[in-house]
Amino acid sequence: MTIKDIARLAGVSISTVSRVLNNHPDVSKEAKEKVLAVVNEYKYIPNASARELVKTSSDNIGVVVRGLSNPFYTKIITEIGARIEEAGYTMVMQQIGTSDDEILTGAMMEREKRLLGLIFLGGRLDYTKEQLSSITIPFVQCTFNNQYGNLDKSNYSSVGIDDNQAAYEAVEQLYKRGHRNIAVLLSGPRDMSVSQVRYEGYLRAVKDFNLESGDDLIISINSYNMADAYTGVKKWLEKKIKFTAIFAISDGLAMGAMKALRDGGYKVPDEVSVIAIDGIEASEYLNPVLTTLCQPMEKMGNRAVELLTDIIEGKKGHEHVVLPTSIRLGESLSALK
Amino acid sequence: MTIKDIARLAGVSISTVSRVLNNHPDVSKEAKEKVLAVVNEYKYIPNASARELVKTSSDNIGVVVRGLSNPFYTKIITEIGARIEEAGYTMVMQQIGTSDDEILTGAMMEREKRLLGLIFLGGRLDYTKEQLSSITIPFVQCTFNNQYGNLDKSNYSSVGIDDNQAAYEAVEQLYKRGHRNIAVLLSGPRDMSVSQVRYEGYLRAVKDFNLESGDDLIISINSYNMADAYTGVKKWLEKKIKFTAIFAISDGLAMGAMKALRDGGYKVPDEVSVIAIDGIEASEYLNPVLTTLCQPMEKMGNRAVELLTDIIEGKKGHEHVVLPTSIRLGESLSALK
Repeated sequence: MTIKDIARLAGVSISTVSRVLNNHPDVSKEAKEKVLAVVNEYKYIPNASARELVKTSSDNIGVVVRGLSNPFYTKIITEIGARIEEAGYTMVMQQIGTSDDEILTGAMMEREKRLLGLIFLGGRLDYTKEQLSSITIPFVQCTFNNQYGNLDKSNYSSVGIDDNQAAYEAVEQLYKRGHRNIAVLLSGPRDMSVSQVRYEGYLRAVKDFNLESGDDLIISINSYNMADAYTGVKKWLEKKIKFTAIFAISDGLAMGAMKALRDGGYKVPDEVSVIAIDGIEASEYLNPVLTTLCQPMEKMGNRAVELLTDIIEGKKGHEHVVLPTSIRLGESLSALK
Repeated sequence: MTIKDIARLAGVSISTVSRVLNNHPDVSKEAKEKVLAVVNEYKYIPNASARELVKTSSDNIGVVVRGLSNPFYTKIITEIGARIEEAGYTMVMQQIGTSDDEILTGAMMEREKRLLGLIFLGGRLDYTKEQLSSITIPFVQCTFNNQYGNLDKSNYSSVGIDDNQAAYEAVEQLYKRGHRNIAVLLSGPRDMSVSQVRYEGYLRAVKDFNLESGDDLIISINSYNMADAYTGVKKWLEKKIKFTAIFAISDGLAMGAMKALRDGGYKVPDEVSVIAIDGIEASEYLNPVLTTLCQPMEKMGNRAVELLTDIIEGKKGHEHVVLPTSIRLGESLSALK
């Protein structure tokens, strides 16, 4: 039995059968049901496909995820996985801790898993050419770029948002509502991660809008965990620094902060306003709902795979894609009286 | 350069080098730093390892995830991925929609990716022997079992909790606090998924404790999404059914319910108590914090890989592991006056 036979029996085109078997999203429900009915009735299982038989190398695309339990990555991975399969490749994923070395992991995967290309989901922003010389296949940086390194832009691709500008705009939302004493909650101000870029955007806004500044307003927790944000903010509140708002560099950190504020007796948004960047699903179900600048997660995953497969297939050169954020107005901001 | 050389230069044992290179968690920070310093200095990249050179087949273990965006799966996948790598295999993951056919996906992966074994993370509970005849490699069902099917227990493994009992205990928590009109929020009461098993546990408690019963108290949303739970509960509230508590079959559904209750003017827990099953991180940061029966997620992922690799390596036969839940007392329950 071939997919030609299935197409005939199901009364659909061969390409429709192929799309159904490859879990392609662009298939009508009816066509899908017809095809699957035939597949189930005849117990059709595709043998190693033609593509599989002629190829001499693997069809593996590696995905190195720095901190998989970060809820922000969940949607992006879902999208990356679906697009890799759809494009006819196999996703081989490896996760590393937030302080592990993704280059070493990527280089080892390249050889052990015979990868065609690599997507780094999260990572350091200070890679040097020398460090990356051990990666000899095309790669895409997803959600981050090379702000503090010296990579040649024509040798890799990236997709992300303008993190500095997003942070600036978040602080601007607070400024417009009268806030002048704005604390920033981050992983580290000089940790060479996205945290640092967003901190620099915060600093730019502080300067432009003439806001209060100083180390007292920096809540640095050396992590991206909700639990660490909770502990860090709780401790910081004991210092009784004057503040009316918190800009958290991620939704996850904001969730920890909001719980710490509540436990510390501070009402959000009546006494303290909170804004963040990311737009994960859970933060929409908080009480109050978190106001945040949403990253286009699905689009990011989609473009990361597109950029990589275009290069693998020789269709295009490397590109750097910056996508816009959009504000989700929740209930965590209020204007100062 | 071999790992023997690295061990000598770093002043550690060969097995320590191996553990560091395989991202094994049981390595001291100092040893890790020493090894990575040498690796970086000499730009050591393991070539196809000995294992790789002698093997004739792949080392792929497939993971089919039903609904990756389910936050409950995130931690389990993290654990599964880490344990698969640690055991020297490669994780090939494929995600499917909540209404897609995981058997077809698994059977195709078995052939196309030349898998040694399969882990199904979430899936239908009514597989028949005939349906599974297309899967010829060992497999483990993670987080679910075959309650409504006819699989021979000696032909597959499973790891999960006692879903019926967990639901019973959740309802018992409400009963002990005086609640008699308890609504159940679920995907479907007869959908052959975990939703149905938990519903049956709810029914058992309703009978044992002589609680109010009837279709009016069933909020069925045909999905596991927060957004659908929100919409479903909001609509149900308009019917003005008499109730004082909601048992949600998952934390995600409870999150949607709590937002709907708030928007509908109901105070949790003063007017309505809410309890669920799962124990995802986000539900701990709600206001009020959700009370829930926690599944041992890391342990589940860990055991799933252990069960599968033991079978692949011929060490053991198939097993069925039932792990205990533990209650996380939040702030979403109150006693009726």
